[in-house]
Amino acid sequence: MQKATVKECLTKLPVGSELEVRGWVRTFRSNRFIALNDGGTAANLQCVVDFENASEEDLKRITTGSCIVVRGDLVSSQGKGQTVEVQAKSFEILGDADPDEYPLQPKKHSLEFLREKAHLRMRTTTFGAIMRIRHAATFAVHKYFNDRGFFNIHTPIITGSDAEGAGEMFRVSTLDPANPPMTEDGKVDFAQDFFERETNLTVSGQLEAELAAMGLSKVYTFGPTFRAENSNTSRHLAEFWMIEPEVAFNDLDDNMDLAEDFLKSVIKYILQNCEEDLAVLDARLAEEEKVKPQAERSEQGLIERLNFVVDNNFVRLSYTEAIEILRNSKPNKKGKFKYRIDEWGADLQSEHERYLVEKHFKSPVILFDYPASIKAFYMRLNEDEKTVRAMDVLFPGIGEIVGGSQREERLDVLVSKMQKLGIEEEDLWWYLETRKFGTCTHSGFGLGFERMVQFITGMGNIRDVIPFPRTPGRAEF
Amino acid sequence: MQKATVKECLTKLPVGSELEVRGWVRTFRSNRFIALNDGGTAANLQCVVDFENASEEDLKRITTGSCIVVRGDLVSSQGKGQTVEVQAKSFEILGDADPDEYPLQPKKHSLEFLREKAHLRMRTTTFGAIMRIRHAATFAVHKYFNDRGFFNIHTPIITGSDAEGAGEMFRVSTLDPANPPMTEDGKVDFAQDFFERETNLTVSGQLEAELAAMGLSKVYTFGPTFRAENSNTSRHLAEFWMIEPEVAFNDLDDNMDLAEDFLKSVIKYILQNCEEDLAVLDARLAEEEKVKPQAERSEQGLIERLNFVVDNNFVRLSYTEAIEILRNSKPNKKGKFKYRIDEWGADLQSEHERYLVEKHFKSPVILFDYPASIKAFYMRLNEDEKTVRAMDVLFPGIGEIVGGSQREERLDVLVSKMQKLGIEEEDLWWYLETRKFGTCTHSGFGLGFERMVQFITGMGNIRDVIPFPRTPGRAEF
Repeated sequence: MQKATVKECLTKLPVGSELEVRGWVRTFRSNRFIALNDGGTAANLQCVVDFENASEEDLKRITTGSCIVVRGDLVSSQGKGQTVEVQAKSFEILGDADPDEYPLQPKKHSLEFLREKAHLRMRTTTFGAIMRIRHAATFAVHKYFNDRGFFNIHTPIITGSDAEGAGEMFRVSTLDPANPPMTEDGKVDFAQDFFERETNLTVSGQLEAELAAMGLSKVYTFGPTFRAENSNTSRHLAEFWMIEPEVAFNDLDDNMDLAEDFLKSVIKYILQNCEEDLAVLDARLAEEEKVKPQAERSEQGLIERLNFVVDNNFVRLSYTEAIEILRNSKPNKKGKFKYRIDEWGADLQSEHERYLVEKHFKSPVILFDYPASIKAFYMRLNEDEKTVRAMDVLFPGIGEIVGGSQREERLDVLVSKMQKLGIEEEDLWWYLETRKFGTCTHSGFGLGFERMVQFITGMGNIRDVIPFPRTPGRAEF
Repeated sequence: MQKATVKECLTKLPVGSELEVRGWVRTFRSNRFIALNDGGTAANLQCVVDFENASEEDLKRITTGSCIVVRGDLVSSQGKGQTVEVQAKSFEILGDADPDEYPLQPKKHSLEFLREKAHLRMRTTTFGAIMRIRHAATFAVHKYFNDRGFFNIHTPIITGSDAEGAGEMFRVSTLDPANPPMTEDGKVDFAQDFFERETNLTVSGQLEAELAAMGLSKVYTFGPTFRAENSNTSRHLAEFWMIEPEVAFNDLDDNMDLAEDFLKSVIKYILQNCEEDLAVLDARLAEEEKVKPQAERSEQGLIERLNFVVDNNFVRLSYTEAIEILRNSKPNKKGKFKYRIDEWGADLQSEHERYLVEKHFKSPVILFDYPASIKAFYMRLNEDEKTVRAMDVLFPGIGEIVGGSQREERLDVLVSKMQKLGIEEEDLWWYLETRKFGTCTHSGFGLGFERMVQFITGMGNIRDVIPFPRTPGRAEF
């Protein structure tokens, strides 16, 4: 008797096959119909039990959440919703799930409740779909870059450098926390720590990716990054995964082309490879939208939205043009923005980005050439000496999904910028040496992986697109 | 004029193409022949400069490490070692590399020296090859699992759980290190820390992968893991990448099959996709072997060794059988082992593993059914009640490359084991619940990615197969 997965039963094996299939019971109705799921696919396999020849006691143990093995024949199904089912000759309970204790009974659970049960939520239809899509997106990322001659670089997680300034950092240490060794001037003596210096968790692999690009030309990172910010919002995680391509000889235009092509390719891959799971999430979102007031409902369904992004060019405009549009916009004139846009140089807030994307252009937007004063030190200064070759990709419902730039490749300009900002040259001697030896134009960007998965799955809270979210006060599991 | 990479010039473009190619100068000889490399491939592209029509000053700037763009025609080459070359019509220096300062001059550098220059070493032939192979192995891992219906799970890096007992951990904190808040009984008050508890960097994603496998059936992790052990050896890193598949319904035999098939598939992928880079490393290793005394030299070259692993079955034997072989071995009888094997129950040391693999079987070996007393709490107890369903895969030159087990799926057995070892049930309530609700047989293993890359590249020191190694006292870059 062959072992088969639920997916093999539903899509591959010929009717008439004698088989053995394992999985978890989703529902059991009429003492006869088991909906069996093994997580390999969204669909359940119907297994029909011959209840007249089964013991009462065994039948009672077929409960939601129990793990069973069913042996029988694959037959055409008369019922609606499936073309095949398994006519069970026998079944066996591998692991019980007491209905009085098992929390995931077949009824609607709130996303908040399921977050508390992150160890079990992957057994549900919604989270099974999200996690399978997250995997498919992971694979699509690697495939995209591999197909185009990029090399994946594992940049360090523990870093002695804190010059990137991307946000608050977590300290990593093995010193006795209650009695750390102290220096004579009353500071913690990190020279006695594991790495003989103060170390933190990385906020970005960009600087190290640049080092690699200056030897291997096209590289990308895909790893965890960290922010110790006390942000208890639906858009922030303390630990999240970031993708950072970095390409020698690419200028800002090449960089925008790469970001747009990359996003479209990954989304296309999901549209082509995750139809069933997308259908689950499309229906879930439609359900969620129904209860919203008319004015707040999205014009597009989930799959429609994904197709829209794949099929249309992103709008590209300079920061200066964006400021003009925002300054003359209705919400700005009517005082509807929390932060009024009065003059060039203002940092754009989420409300402004959303206005541009969702109201004005109704399309993903790439903004470029930002004021130098609101962007990081490593971005290349334009000839005007007040803007830098930065770019942000803005997505509907998500806001900034990509942030990138052409990097400052001129040693003298970079050093003078660092001096102005008080960044010590000796802390970044290795970064500066790539400008000293064989420097060249190069560009790259960072993409928050969970933001992309949110966009693809339509999930409103970032905590629902990563298996075990880390947020202030939460490090369970 | 089309932009082309070095690889495109060497393998794809037709002779006669007019092109523009960028890269870093490896060597420049006779004021005429540039060996240009852009890191996309091991081979250099010869560019021939018309020195009579170039300025003396420009020619002087073509130095090792400088970055240049060459414009010209792709022509058949008369010289040996290449079939095509670029007849340069013009060239331009993008970034100089002062020969008095640039450290990577064209001579042999020690691996130790290059470790100090990790920001530049990827520009060398050896490290270019290693990093491209590391990338290819990364992709092969994802492809292997994706092709077989596994889902990649990003397990948490910051963890509140320290029950795994796999080794010393790094603490993660945002408390003021000099003045941490204290509780009344004089301990650090981690309730005031970012996560409101003490947190560490993960040593393994296994427990969380098990949670996922109990819903999605087949999963794998591929992420960084950490050991705060003061081991300054060629085999240890404080930060390294681990691959951990976990499969519901797999027993130990399935697990051994998976490990063997996985290792062979990844190595086969490298043999098929990285010929040129393997040739570089094969030659490097042969060179290194030459200076060793005859008795210490490997019998096989690098590529030979990889083919051997792919083509032959791994030897599988129980711990008990291994102990018998070791007890009766010459080195044991003659007192040549540092740790003499006298009785059943002894933990195997590296010297014993190497004897089995390199001397006795001359083959990769899988040992299974280890004494419960020397293995982790979550491994399934055999009927004999003294051994557990553990397995280790041992490789020549590397030692343990994979460690895995069938997991204890019986709640009562697991709880009693934890109690004996003093592991608090409340710390792992979520892990125990997977045994309480729909438990089933399942198995998995962990593979140290760098150990595998070491085996594939033939590099003796683990610090040379990761871009920026983290070891005691070292967190530079």
